[in-house]
Amino acid sequence: MRRKQELTLTLPELARRLGAQLELPAGQNPDAIILNGLSTLECAQPHDLAFVGGERYRTAASQSQAGALLVTEADRIPERPCLVVPHVWKAALAAFDLWYPDIKPAPGIHPSAVVDPAAQIHPTASIGPLAVVEAGARIGAQVEVGAQCFIGRDVQVGDGTLLHPAVRLLERVQVGRGVIIHSGAVLGSDGFGYEIIDGRGVKIPQVGTIVVEDEVEIGANTTIDRAFLHATRVGAGSKIDNLVQIAHNVQIGRCCGLASQVGVAGSTVVGDGVIMWGQVGVPDHIRIGDRAVLLAKSGIKDSVPAGETVFGAPAIPVKEAGRQLAAVKRLPDALRQIKSLERQIEKLIGEKTV
Amino acid sequence: MRRKQELTLTLPELARRLGAQLELPAGQNPDAIILNGLSTLECAQPHDLAFVGGERYRTAASQSQAGALLVTEADRIPERPCLVVPHVWKAALAAFDLWYPDIKPAPGIHPSAVVDPAAQIHPTASIGPLAVVEAGARIGAQVEVGAQCFIGRDVQVGDGTLLHPAVRLLERVQVGRGVIIHSGAVLGSDGFGYEIIDGRGVKIPQVGTIVVEDEVEIGANTTIDRAFLHATRVGAGSKIDNLVQIAHNVQIGRCCGLASQVGVAGSTVVGDGVIMWGQVGVPDHIRIGDRAVLLAKSGIKDSVPAGETVFGAPAIPVKEAGRQLAAVKRLPDALRQIKSLERQIEKLIGEKTV
Amino acid sequence: MRRKQELTLTLPELARRLGAQLELPAGQNPDAIILNGLSTLECAQPHDLAFVGGERYRTAASQSQAGALLVTEADRIPERPCLVVPHVWKAALAAFDLWYPDIKPAPGIHPSAVVDPAAQIHPTASIGPLAVVEAGARIGAQVEVGAQCFIGRDVQVGDGTLLHPAVRLLERVQVGRGVIIHSGAVLGSDGFGYEIIDGRGVKIPQVGTIVVEDEVEIGANTTIDRAFLHATRVGAGSKIDNLVQIAHNVQIGRCCGLASQVGVAGSTVVGDGVIMWGQVGVPDHIRIGDRAVLLAKSGIKDSVPAGETVFGAPAIPVKEAGRQLAAVKRLPDALRQIKSLERQIEKLIGEKTV
Repeated sequence: MRRKQELTLTLPELARRLGAQLELPAGQNPDAIILNGLSTLECAQPHDLAFVGGERYRTAASQSQAGALLVTEADRIPERPCLVVPHVWKAALAAFDLWYPDIKPAPGIHPSAVVDPAAQIHPTASIGPLAVVEAGARIGAQVEVGAQCFIGRDVQVGDGTLLHPAVRLLERVQVGRGVIIHSGAVLGSDGFGYEIIDGRGVKIPQVGTIVVEDEVEIGANTTIDRAFLHATRVGAGSKIDNLVQIAHNVQIGRCCGLASQVGVAGSTVVGDGVIMWGQVGVPDHIRIGDRAVLLAKSGIKDSVPAGETVFGAPAIPVKEAGRQLAAVKRLPDALRQIKSLERQIEKLIGEKTV
Repeated sequence: MRRKQELTLTLPELARRLGAQLELPAGQNPDAIILNGLSTLECAQPHDLAFVGGERYRTAASQSQAGALLVTEADRIPERPCLVVPHVWKAALAAFDLWYPDIKPAPGIHPSAVVDPAAQIHPTASIGPLAVVEAGARIGAQVEVGAQCFIGRDVQVGDGTLLHPAVRLLERVQVGRGVIIHSGAVLGSDGFGYEIIDGRGVKIPQVGTIVVEDEVEIGANTTIDRAFLHATRVGAGSKIDNLVQIAHNVQIGRCCGLASQVGVAGSTVVGDGVIMWGQVGVPDHIRIGDRAVLLAKSGIKDSVPAGETVFGAPAIPVKEAGRQLAAVKRLPDALRQIKSLERQIEKLIGEKTV
Repeated sequence: MRRKQELTLTLPELARRLGAQLELPAGQNPDAIILNGLSTLECAQPHDLAFVGGERYRTAASQSQAGALLVTEADRIPERPCLVVPHVWKAALAAFDLWYPDIKPAPGIHPSAVVDPAAQIHPTASIGPLAVVEAGARIGAQVEVGAQCFIGRDVQVGDGTLLHPAVRLLERVQVGRGVIIHSGAVLGSDGFGYEIIDGRGVKIPQVGTIVVEDEVEIGANTTIDRAFLHATRVGAGSKIDNLVQIAHNVQIGRCCGLASQVGVAGSTVVGDGVIMWGQVGVPDHIRIGDRAVLLAKSGIKDSVPAGETVFGAPAIPVKEAGRQLAAVKRLPDALRQIKSLERQIEKLIGEKTV
């Protein structure tokens, strides 16, 4: 968890620590500019450093009260003290490390945790208060298991992974290295699988597992179901927001982004670099191609080709969706036009008859 | 938690306790009417008091088996025993206090809770079994922290707030007075923030917090993300239902109502008195004006002016949405009409040519 | 929890255990076919048994590497070793019992659980680590209460019910026999009920409860609110997926299926055998008839008759929805046609005038 640290730096000292080039309006004394924290352009006070994330923030930057601005050469504001860097966000990460260092809990097992003697906990890992770790679980180096987490039998958690309080990893789930899982997420609930036997729905055992690859992030209260027989999978580097549902047997590729409240139904295969915006629904047994973009609230019906951007429910290519929406907007007028054409034609026919 | 209490009252005694005026059909003996509980009009039995919440319930009221009806003068049912009050729901609250008094747990810390010595717990607060309270947390007077709650470092909980079992308040979150938070809610998960650095999505630290103002209610398994740098905010008196997602930096005004499964994306500003019905999605960086109403399942696209009611995905003013829906309903017929007009015109042109 | 068991069987021995008829391509020696597990058709290896769930899987079955196929007579693949049974899934359940037997925890109360002496726990029930069971709760025979569950005051849990880790059953909730509830589900949060008193929204006490009938399954992080006064109800045999919201006073019938992220608002009555696909929203105070099917992402507006299938937001009968969608697809062209007709008519009128 990152915590604010008291730290006061002159502008030249900060420039040195961030590897930034200092550029000041003529006549300003850089040593008189004292910084003690980070802020957004809008909220910054004279002792804050603020970030200029791109060209569209130039107006906000020139109006900001910030003591100094972190910018690229292209976005420099000549009338303001600037720290010029090749990449704003890369330098910003260094600034976060200065003022909000990541403070790890001390290694070891909290005395209130319930850890089975047959679990393997790396000596550099920390297990929080009232966590449960069952037999056969393997917890890697530098792992943080938050308070009240549940780590089931034979679960594996890779090195450097962070489990916030109250994460549930159920029996046999495998989590890679450098993964972050937020509070309340459940990995390993049963898939929603029933078959009709003798006229009633009977539960089909769900005996597979989940594989979460390295550097994945999973949001608060998100749910991922174990596979029917093999493994539900989330590919390396994919980021999943809060309250998302991933059903059994789903395969999510690498470096995908799934925003909040997305749902992906069973056995669907999602390629690499796919973006799903908020509240998208994806049905079962389809394929979403690499780098496809599913716009917010879309209800996908069929497989989506690689690189396609779709919108709507049922979702269609976004350009076609735009055309249809524009046409529907004109529809009430068009219906009146049709009525008017009918009357004119009737008249023409009538006149002809006469 | 409110619990049913055995309590038997004659109708005059109940009238006295509720400050109600007793009105009976001629010839009925009020002391012979004995009440021992509350019910709905439909389910009430002869020993129940039932509420008549307005004019539209008059038929149900006149058919109810209830022993007595709580009504306003305007909705009085002459042929039934009535307790007449100026405001039905205000009197109903008093009736709940009689039969379902709110029973608070005894103050103090359950011996199984894990409370850091550097946490400040008011002596009138109660901390339930297996709760965790970390260093620097401040728990106010009369606060109930339910079983298995997690209260992180430096969290503040104001007087009289009720946390149901298994609520998670992560590091530094601030909760006001008289707030109610339901089980499984997570406040303080990281915002979903990434920037592309050297070709891959890199997590941006989320070091802000959340401010929940007084008298807010937050539903079960709802998630609220901490701000990137400052504070995500929920204004006083706002009510948020279950499974809602509030993203980082969002500002919710006062006295809003957000129904279940609503999602509000990052940095959006919501005014006062806004109503969002179930499953509404609101994108990032827009503004929802005061008293706007977002109808169920709407997918908002742009800022919504104060007082506007919108519907659809993308959402538009509800009147325009109604016109478009009505027009689309007539569209299959209109397409046939167009075909018919074409034929008639072809014929007219053909005849003319001949 | 089912766990993989090492077990190696010859094909004739497996046939005997499953009550299946063995059918082999001519010349194959059945005793040379050795099986040690289950798989899907796609992933199966030569020592796996795989299931052929129906005619549409015949191609996959004929290409599968599985050592043997479990099929009905109608779907038999002559060139592959087959175990022929009257019902594939019924036989598959027996195969799961062989290779993935359901291993119950030992009966008894884990020493770290906090169980009130006034709770009644059947001696054959198991209470997991760090669970809380409050006074008056009654836990039936063979019940599994998972780690970190919360069982509130006067809750009832029927025989043979399975609560996965971190399920929350709040005060007075009643759960039947043979129910399965997944991690993070919350049963008994307050309904979302407010009335305007003196110009502000005031919380109305929610003092009812929930009745979950026998053989229901409830998904991970799903929320079910307690009734205002009587009981929210989920009928016998109904299956509810993850992240579903059931509001106060809702009545769900028997043998319904509600997919992930469905929301049902207050006091709505759902008949028997109703299917709601993912992300459907159902408003308050309506009625969904028996065996109705609400297709994915539909936003229901009014009551749905028995047996009807609906789609869209607002939802309409699926055939009508299909007609409208097809018409909208043709609309951009139709608008151009209208323009063209206008020009032709203008020309006809013009010529006539001349």
